[in-house]
Amino acid sequence: MAPLKLGMVGGGQGAFIGGVHRMAARLDGCFDLVAGALSSDPERARASAADIGLDATRSYDDFRHMAKAEAARPDGIVAVSVVTPNHLHGPIAEAFLNAGISVICDKPMTATLAQAESLAAAARSSEGSFFLTHNYTGYPMVRQAREMVSQGAIGTVRCVETNYLQDWLAETPDKDNKQAQWRLDPAQSGGGAIGDIGTHAHNLTCFVSGQHATGLQATLSSHVAGRTVDDDARVTIALSGGAKAHIWASQVAIGNENNLTLAIYGSKASLHWSQENPNMLRFAELGQAPRIITRGGSAAGPAAAAVTRIPAGHPEGYLEAFATLYSEAAEAIRTKRRPAHSLGIQEGLDGVRFVDACQRSSAQNGAWIDLP
Amino acid sequence: MAPLKLGMVGGGQGAFIGGVHRMAARLDGCFDLVAGALSSDPERARASAADIGLDATRSYDDFRHMAKAEAARPDGIVAVSVVTPNHLHGPIAEAFLNAGISVICDKPMTATLAQAESLAAAARSSEGSFFLTHNYTGYPMVRQAREMVSQGAIGTVRCVETNYLQDWLAETPDKDNKQAQWRLDPAQSGGGAIGDIGTHAHNLTCFVSGQHATGLQATLSSHVAGRTVDDDARVTIALSGGAKAHIWASQVAIGNENNLTLAIYGSKASLHWSQENPNMLRFAELGQAPRIITRGGSAAGPAAAAVTRIPAGHPEGYLEAFATLYSEAAEAIRTKRRPAHSLGIQEGLDGVRFVDACQRSSAQNGAWIDLP
Amino acid sequence: MAPLKLGMVGGGQGAFIGGVHRMAARLDGCFDLVAGALSSDPERARASAADIGLDATRSYDDFRHMAKAEAARPDGIVAVSVVTPNHLHGPIAEAFLNAGISVICDKPMTATLAQAESLAAAARSSEGSFFLTHNYTGYPMVRQAREMVSQGAIGTVRCVETNYLQDWLAETPDKDNKQAQWRLDPAQSGGGAIGDIGTHAHNLTCFVSGQHATGLQATLSSHVAGRTVDDDARVTIALSGGAKAHIWASQVAIGNENNLTLAIYGSKASLHWSQENPNMLRFAELGQAPRIITRGGSAAGPAAAAVTRIPAGHPEGYLEAFATLYSEAAEAIRTKRRPAHSLGIQEGLDGVRFVDACQRSSAQNGAWIDLP
Amino acid sequence: MAPLKLGMVGGGQGAFIGGVHRMAARLDGCFDLVAGALSSDPERARASAADIGLDATRSYDDFRHMAKAEAARPDGIVAVSVVTPNHLHGPIAEAFLNAGISVICDKPMTATLAQAESLAAAARSSEGSFFLTHNYTGYPMVRQAREMVSQGAIGTVRCVETNYLQDWLAETPDKDNKQAQWRLDPAQSGGGAIGDIGTHAHNLTCFVSGQHATGLQATLSSHVAGRTVDDDARVTIALSGGAKAHIWASQVAIGNENNLTLAIYGSKASLHWSQENPNMLRFAELGQAPRIITRGGSAAGPAAAAVTRIPAGHPEGYLEAFATLYSEAAEAIRTKRRPAHSLGIQEGLDGVRFVDACQRSSAQNGAWIDLP
Repeated sequence: MAPLKLGMVGGGQGAFIGGVHRMAARLDGCFDLVAGALSSDPERARASAADIGLDATRSYDDFRHMAKAEAARPDGIVAVSVVTPNHLHGPIAEAFLNAGISVICDKPMTATLAQAESLAAAARSSEGSFFLTHNYTGYPMVRQAREMVSQGAIGTVRCVETNYLQDWLAETPDKDNKQAQWRLDPAQSGGGAIGDIGTHAHNLTCFVSGQHATGLQATLSSHVAGRTVDDDARVTIALSGGAKAHIWASQVAIGNENNLTLAIYGSKASLHWSQENPNMLRFAELGQAPRIITRGGSAAGPAAAAVTRIPAGHPEGYLEAFATLYSEAAEAIRTKRRPAHSLGIQEGLDGVRFVDACQRSSAQNGAWIDLP
Repeated sequence: MAPLKLGMVGGGQGAFIGGVHRMAARLDGCFDLVAGALSSDPERARASAADIGLDATRSYDDFRHMAKAEAARPDGIVAVSVVTPNHLHGPIAEAFLNAGISVICDKPMTATLAQAESLAAAARSSEGSFFLTHNYTGYPMVRQAREMVSQGAIGTVRCVETNYLQDWLAETPDKDNKQAQWRLDPAQSGGGAIGDIGTHAHNLTCFVSGQHATGLQATLSSHVAGRTVDDDARVTIALSGGAKAHIWASQVAIGNENNLTLAIYGSKASLHWSQENPNMLRFAELGQAPRIITRGGSAAGPAAAAVTRIPAGHPEGYLEAFATLYSEAAEAIRTKRRPAHSLGIQEGLDGVRFVDACQRSSAQNGAWIDLP
Repeated sequence: MAPLKLGMVGGGQGAFIGGVHRMAARLDGCFDLVAGALSSDPERARASAADIGLDATRSYDDFRHMAKAEAARPDGIVAVSVVTPNHLHGPIAEAFLNAGISVICDKPMTATLAQAESLAAAARSSEGSFFLTHNYTGYPMVRQAREMVSQGAIGTVRCVETNYLQDWLAETPDKDNKQAQWRLDPAQSGGGAIGDIGTHAHNLTCFVSGQHATGLQATLSSHVAGRTVDDDARVTIALSGGAKAHIWASQVAIGNENNLTLAIYGSKASLHWSQENPNMLRFAELGQAPRIITRGGSAAGPAAAAVTRIPAGHPEGYLEAFATLYSEAAEAIRTKRRPAHSLGIQEGLDGVRFVDACQRSSAQNGAWIDLP
Repeated sequence: MAPLKLGMVGGGQGAFIGGVHRMAARLDGCFDLVAGALSSDPERARASAADIGLDATRSYDDFRHMAKAEAARPDGIVAVSVVTPNHLHGPIAEAFLNAGISVICDKPMTATLAQAESLAAAARSSEGSFFLTHNYTGYPMVRQAREMVSQGAIGTVRCVETNYLQDWLAETPDKDNKQAQWRLDPAQSGGGAIGDIGTHAHNLTCFVSGQHATGLQATLSSHVAGRTVDDDARVTIALSGGAKAHIWASQVAIGNENNLTLAIYGSKASLHWSQENPNMLRFAELGQAPRIITRGGSAAGPAAAAVTRIPAGHPEGYLEAFATLYSEAAEAIRTKRRPAHSLGIQEGLDGVRFVDACQRSSAQNGAWIDLP
């Protein structure tokens, strides 16, 4: 099948996640990137477009102009990737949804709750679809864990422990570290570790457990002088099924690169997964020798198999998991059917509400906050 | 040097920790077990004494009688191991201390704070010494971590994460599981997971960080129908140096055998240690490749070397760590000098206060409790 | 830059490595697959082409016809991927090289030494280039190891230990397992485990050590009734620097998926790498705590950095390593300059000679065979 | 039961393995060390005896005198530990066996085949028993592996891979390193790595597989200037069941401390064990998720349970495994019954023949040597 035509907003020179989205869009051949507003700086936008081989006529200075122009073309894009700093996600996504173009948006969905609600309204009235890239849900062994939990393999959930530890902000970063600068500016990011990685942990917790948060308490803190956003978050979540989840998200935990782990304990068994070695899942039943389920191995079930490209022992990584979200988005756009595990506006709202509640709880010394 | 004469109270047939203490006392040849009140049941006491080769004339039915009789003998014991259920630690230890006999006592020191304070008073006026067997402090790599932290190797402590996870109480145990029965009876244990393993986690946190708790909040919970003690504890501790420590202690976390881990994060580096693979310590400095320091290896310092018996790569385990506490107790009794890392009444009091504060905090829905 | 136009021979429905090559070619956007002779069966060729979105006019039944037709087009392919069973590599590669089209060929280069020498001659007189996809050389940590060895980080090489263990042929495979069938037919494969994975181990040994084989002895064996190729190979190699390398390649080693490991020991240090967890490299210097060098981490050098796409802790896997060979081939075709680590005819010849020598040695009961 | 009275020859100040034997003898309380000829230097013998609390009247200068004197005492030793350099094992063991005293002897049994055969004759006519301390056979997970193999859990054995890697002799050791000096002197050791650790690997291979060697070929080499014994050995063994075993034993493999691993592959499954993390055994059945069997865990069988002291997750190590051999020797002496897994003269002969055959094979450029 011919690839779908894709645009991108953000992701110009010096950015990180834009390149990731481009590789993810390309890997399975489902999308062809043909248009972009890669930077708000016109010069940089042009140079960035040239770098990645975009036709100059489809390199735009302004995302609103791009949305209109592409919607008007007979060969216009059917979807756009939004990979800017967080505070721009909402306006950009709305512009494209209003133009009937589907949106594939990085997380968190928006920087504020007001933006999230506005975007949700725009999505409801659009012919386009909204996809949120909590990319860790694309890992086959995460799918495997979700499937096993839903099938009762661990019994009743007793607790979920999700840690997301990094150390790249353990000290004040260089001024020219573009990635760091916008993340450390609350006006652009809407939050620190809690928004950047805490939302991933929250999303993954819900995704694997099949439950949502009904309340939480949080302690956000900062460990580096002069920092105005949190760099470390501890959150206790009440899950809809009655159990508790605990999240620790930190960007100052020295010795950790991108150490996202999830452990889910039930009344009969537990599952452990680690993002840095993502092709295996530890399954321990009470009174049994723990088993190592591998991606592509004979113990992996249909949910994992559906998103497995290559045989067991040939490691798939971060880009493959990310690409799975793109391929599933393409399939959903083509077929106008979204699978149950596809992440959209609801998960985006959940994530922004999570950040907002954590910030309110922490401001009130860890008070309990109910969630809708 | 001739071994010191040792007695034991508790540790009869069907017990677990008594046998551990006996092997620990023997391993380095520092003690010779010659007397015991191994059970409160006279028949069982006698049979247990015969099992382990005690002279029948020094097998006692009653610990008070034993304390007096041994104190009166010219060849009487100089120390006694107390390995009964928790609620008996206090009275037994007092009886021997009052008789001038040193006490090597399992943890927690007592089942109640009142007992702990009474015992502390007895210890102050005794010629004997009191030793508390938080045995995990005997591991060479724990000593190494403590030494490195004290020397500034990780910079200022940012947080300590100590998890102690087991699963042997994930369901209601058999009636004839003696170990389980007294632990699940609050009158005998004084608490559930918080007392049994939470105190180890608390002690280890303080031991490695070189700090003590100034306050805490705790959530204790129970996951098995009909259980009247906690089986899962989550505690946040304020450390005297200003950082926070987080403890998760659980006896229902399926897939964990005796999974005690400690991670300590500082402004410059972190250290990770795991009890189930105890001969290595991961040391990660910011911006450096993490290093694996091994017991007996060239990167281990004097504190670890002092308690290392055999070369690197020849694993020492749980019994060796336990034996180190015995050997150090023997040395302290002989020389009347205790090293800074030796655990006694103060650590025992700290532990019982920790349990008490956790229980009060949890009863008040996680309220903050200051510690003296 | 616009992607180069690529063709493919082989890789139709039911094949494995064809899909891998296509993903690898796409990931970095360096190639655009526009033509193919995906199967020697015309019906299957057509259906396979439709599956992957090839224009029907550029789906060919015959590779010779394809080579001529594409060479004649103004918009013809500049390179072709050869992903057929081994015995066809030589004729196909020659056809395209003779047409001036570069070849990216799966390993082993050919099924026989005669084919290899014929192909080498064809390559010498072609304007096209020949690239061999020993894909494991594309892993950043393999590049790191090679760089460190060349810089003397381990001192003089004492030995190299390369094991490549799988278990997918531990029993007789199903008749409809296309992958297995041609590999188990010596006429198509030219050898069993020795050709399929032993050549990878041999290549990796040489790539990392910077040395070549001057002689070897081998024992090839078969563990499954009725099998006419080897499924397990043990080889001792004399390296040009004076040290020995040992290879164990097996496809019947139950419990291994694609477990390729390399350890290289020198007079000062050693390096260990494992393909199934490929983002780390263990570096142990004599008398020092071993260090874990990570892809993207601060201890990784320029050779690894040059082929690293995403930050440390975000695992790159098999497809990324494979894609690196494609991206480097594209760069070499564009610039007409090949980097020192690029694999071509020489490495292909070395590999086929290795297989041939192993087979001769084994037939002579493990006799020593000198290599040119 | 009262401990048996034990003597020791060798193990004076500066020795390593003597202290290990003493701890092993003490741990389970089965032996009481009461006599010794700890050094051939009278001064050192006396000082060493005092160090470990031996009665001066039972500290001997000469092992022959000791054997006679102890045999004559009503309270004389019933067994003696022989922990000298290898070339003295034979004469000492014979002296005690001739005096009717059982011998617990370190490995290899003797330094030469002639000594071994002489000792075997002495043992046949003695009332004492001979025990050989290939201590790695005492690990519970090694017993588990042996039991599983014997019960058919892995099917027919296809191969055994046993590696024993150290690096403590990677360079010329200090002159005052007593351990190194005698091992590097062929007159005292009878061989280098092949005798010191290769015999362990050979013994473990046979112990777990339940088979013996019917032939072998070996390459012994030396990597350090001036060294007159081998420091690296590669051996291929034909096992009595028809499979091959491969041994790599090295004392110059930098980055390895005491890295003994065994993998045994069968037609149905494989088992992997590593001495440096000895409390687990990996069991992988074809087409199943690999399982981790733990010491003390519910998947461990009776053979492991019989030699397990403490619960799962409380690691037992090297000394515990060693102590198991002592405890089983005590039991055998008391009951006059030896279990099938007890190691004695036959295993000692096998080991010395193994070393001898390796040396002959290597001297003949790797020629095949048949074993009786």
